[in-house]
Amino acid sequence: MPASSAPAPAVAAPREVGVTELVLRDAHQSLMATRMALEDMVGACADIDAAGYWSVECWGGATYDACIRFLNEDPWERLRTFRELMPNSRLQMLLRGQNLLGYRHYEDGVVDRFVEKSADNGMDVFRVFDALNDVRNVRRAIEAVRRVDKHAQGTICYTESPLHTVEGYVRMARDLMELGCDSLCIKDMAALLRPQPAYDIVKGIKEELGADVRVHVHCHATTGVTLVSLMKAIEAGADVVDTAISSVSLGPGHNPTESLVSMLEGTGYTTNLDGERLLRIKDHFAAVRPRYAQFMSGITGVETEIFDSQIPGGMISNMESQLRQQGAGDRLKEVLAEVPRVRQVAGYPPLVTPSSQIVGTQAVFNVLMGPYKVLTAEFADLMLGYYGQTLGERDPGIVEQAQAQTRKDPIEVRPADLLAPEWDRLCEEANALAGADGTDEDVLTYAMFPGVAPGFFAKRPEGPVNVGLDPAEVLASRDSDSTGKGPVTGPIRYDVTLDGAKHRVTVERG
Amino acid sequence: MPASSAPAPAVAAPREVGVTELVLRDAHQSLMATRMALEDMVGACADIDAAGYWSVECWGGATYDACIRFLNEDPWERLRTFRELMPNSRLQMLLRGQNLLGYRHYEDGVVDRFVEKSADNGMDVFRVFDALNDVRNVRRAIEAVRRVDKHAQGTICYTESPLHTVEGYVRMARDLMELGCDSLCIKDMAALLRPQPAYDIVKGIKEELGADVRVHVHCHATTGVTLVSLMKAIEAGADVVDTAISSVSLGPGHNPTESLVSMLEGTGYTTNLDGERLLRIKDHFAAVRPRYAQFMSGITGVETEIFDSQIPGGMISNMESQLRQQGAGDRLKEVLAEVPRVRQVAGYPPLVTPSSQIVGTQAVFNVLMGPYKVLTAEFADLMLGYYGQTLGERDPGIVEQAQAQTRKDPIEVRPADLLAPEWDRLCEEANALAGADGTDEDVLTYAMFPGVAPGFFAKRPEGPVNVGLDPAEVLASRDSDSTGKGPVTGPIRYDVTLDGAKHRVTVERG
Repeated sequence: MPASSAPAPAVAAPREVGVTELVLRDAHQSLMATRMALEDMVGACADIDAAGYWSVECWGGATYDACIRFLNEDPWERLRTFRELMPNSRLQMLLRGQNLLGYRHYEDGVVDRFVEKSADNGMDVFRVFDALNDVRNVRRAIEAVRRVDKHAQGTICYTESPLHTVEGYVRMARDLMELGCDSLCIKDMAALLRPQPAYDIVKGIKEELGADVRVHVHCHATTGVTLVSLMKAIEAGADVVDTAISSVSLGPGHNPTESLVSMLEGTGYTTNLDGERLLRIKDHFAAVRPRYAQFMSGITGVETEIFDSQIPGGMISNMESQLRQQGAGDRLKEVLAEVPRVRQVAGYPPLVTPSSQIVGTQAVFNVLMGPYKVLTAEFADLMLGYYGQTLGERDPGIVEQAQAQTRKDPIEVRPADLLAPEWDRLCEEANALAGADGTDEDVLTYAMFPGVAPGFFAKRPEGPVNVGLDPAEVLASRDSDSTGKGPVTGPIRYDVTLDGAKHRVTVERG
Repeated sequence: MPASSAPAPAVAAPREVGVTELVLRDAHQSLMATRMALEDMVGACADIDAAGYWSVECWGGATYDACIRFLNEDPWERLRTFRELMPNSRLQMLLRGQNLLGYRHYEDGVVDRFVEKSADNGMDVFRVFDALNDVRNVRRAIEAVRRVDKHAQGTICYTESPLHTVEGYVRMARDLMELGCDSLCIKDMAALLRPQPAYDIVKGIKEELGADVRVHVHCHATTGVTLVSLMKAIEAGADVVDTAISSVSLGPGHNPTESLVSMLEGTGYTTNLDGERLLRIKDHFAAVRPRYAQFMSGITGVETEIFDSQIPGGMISNMESQLRQQGAGDRLKEVLAEVPRVRQVAGYPPLVTPSSQIVGTQAVFNVLMGPYKVLTAEFADLMLGYYGQTLGERDPGIVEQAQAQTRKDPIEVRPADLLAPEWDRLCEEANALAGADGTDEDVLTYAMFPGVAPGFFAKRPEGPVNVGLDPAEVLASRDSDSTGKGPVTGPIRYDVTLDGAKHRVTVERG
């Protein structure tokens, strides 16, 4: 709408809202199982660097794991490449607090080392979260980030329960700021954050802690409602919001960057992003996306039932597969109804890695074998406090049962307080592996993925593997797509066995 | 978020916002080329009838044409079926003013007859629009609706140009209300309506014309931004918004009904829709949707470039195909850049059937043959006023050229004023056709689609054709889907001709 048609905004110049671009990390993690190869990203980096983003999320989360497990790619080399190709951008990563990028708690010295090496290799902004919102589990990482003079962002995982309130989130925000965070993030990994609570929480933080406390908002798009939540968060004063370029957006991913830009036009807010650059970034990834069709999430459109079950999309497919393996593929509805009950027993943890898997698997066990007949080892640990504190009280009867089953005592302390220094041992073990190069970076790779690192070190000299289809295969795949969206334009080849003899058969339109 | 976590809303009880469900008309028109068979809808009607919608859009637009052209289905029978299956609902239709559901202007007597018969067969709410926003072209239809004591909804087609302003839209709203409309609709067929103008226009209407003037807002979802626009329209006082059940939503379709419901939770607004019913409606159409895969729009995700070109998605694919036929498939960008210029020459018409096709085709001609070397007959008529008035002045030089080329004079009057009574002639011609049953309904079918009606009348006794795939075909199609979303779980059979001999071949995973 042209300027002439809208009344002048109340403020002379619109307030600039920062944008964090997710395409290089969470977008392909959520939509393409984290499989995007570095070589499919580098072509867009110059435009990303110049588009005017507040930051570029490009590392951490599951990318480290995927690099060494599937792509034979050194994650540290990826980080250095981004640093070189985007010299003008804040590079941002997602860090799972005391778990780093692995799946257990690490001793503080390892946490310090990881943060130092990440900063050394080019990282600027560390978004640090804990799956249980236990602030003790992010404290050490935040302190380490401050020590290397980088941007420490404390994270609130958004969830809903009878105990979760706006006031409680504001309290957690205060706790995080008291650790010395440079900014806060409200992280809505399951797209549960509706517009009104988005407004209320941001407003609450700004009113209670001060308007100059920087608030970032990260929403997924799964329920179809969170672009509205971003609008409300911005109206409440949010400083930065997260989006992904449209060609790698929506579904279980994120709201499209270009839609955010358009949403704010004519309002008292603006992104000041460069539209021409966005168009080029979009076109780049629109061409890349089909290469990863085989990894694409099955979810398109929206999934609003999540509001009832609170179960993220990825978790549902996990549970379905667990049930099918037990010959109980028809009992998914019972499991979905059981999850909220298990969550209550466990003190209402947010459902995010790893709590989502722990709660979901226990719900499957409860349905198949009867409620709490058997506790998984991880659920027992969760009940005993070995992942940290939960907001709600954990069911005392089940805690007792966990104690009996595991012969471990419940703990109240920060889980990492029980760990002895481990860096020297990790160095020794890592450096003994064939192909390890003796760097701290390699020790960290081994520390976080001891099962995968040996194979990766050995094969690393062969160089990165691009698991995407090559462009010709994409074309063939699209042509033979039986959904009818693309006509068959060329011949398709099959290997067909007929009466025991194998034939190479070509089929084409007559 | 539970009640405990959000502050009490400012009003004691949230204001109820009405919802028009689009799944039975515009949703499948936009996403499945209007091909959904009545038999694929009837199973959802009881739930739709009881879900608490303000109205159910189920007829008009392109459905009449599609019924007789592709589905061998009598559109009047479809309307009567809906009336019977949804006795508690307001049934709603989209009517192209003086064009009815056809592609030319009709004499007033035909317009009156069409509205009377639609009301007789069960229609309640008539949404009446004109592609040029020429109020004279909707006046007769609105008067006819009032005469049969049904709900007349005057429509503003939303578009953008240097001449289109909030004040102008409010003026048009006043003109429509002066015709005696029961409500107004802001119709955003190309998803161009951003949040701020959505707010400003609704607010402007409510402030200038009175808070009790009912305003409905109809947005498509193509640009990804219009759920936010609905939020803003609701905040400005909109009474009813249009959505489609999630399983037939998004892309060039509409925002998901369930997302709207969730968006409003905790705010001062509510839909009061029945969530259990919505879930059943969603599941019904989720099962139906794959049957129409071959008709599905290629657009998924969002298309924000529309904001620059203002060209709806469907129009782009039309232009691409026109260009390819001329061996100029590489000149689309030039045509996209030409469209806004042609629109300016034509006085800034909204781009909606038929103006979108007329402007788009002229843009193609201009690029291929040079600017205005040749005018299409329709573009000449548009320039000469034979479709009605435009907001902007039409380029005098091109008007002169149109006059010279067509030997027709420019007109200022309402186009239908030039038409002589035609009902008796239409009756005579229609009733002479084999298979015509002598009803006014059949005459109207003939009047609107004289080329298709004869064939339809002749074949009507054979009954409706469902052009969707049968469930087994859907399954086979999904199994052989090479995008990798569904694994091949069973053998696939092909008929393969090899050296002239036909073989039945079975292929399965080794």
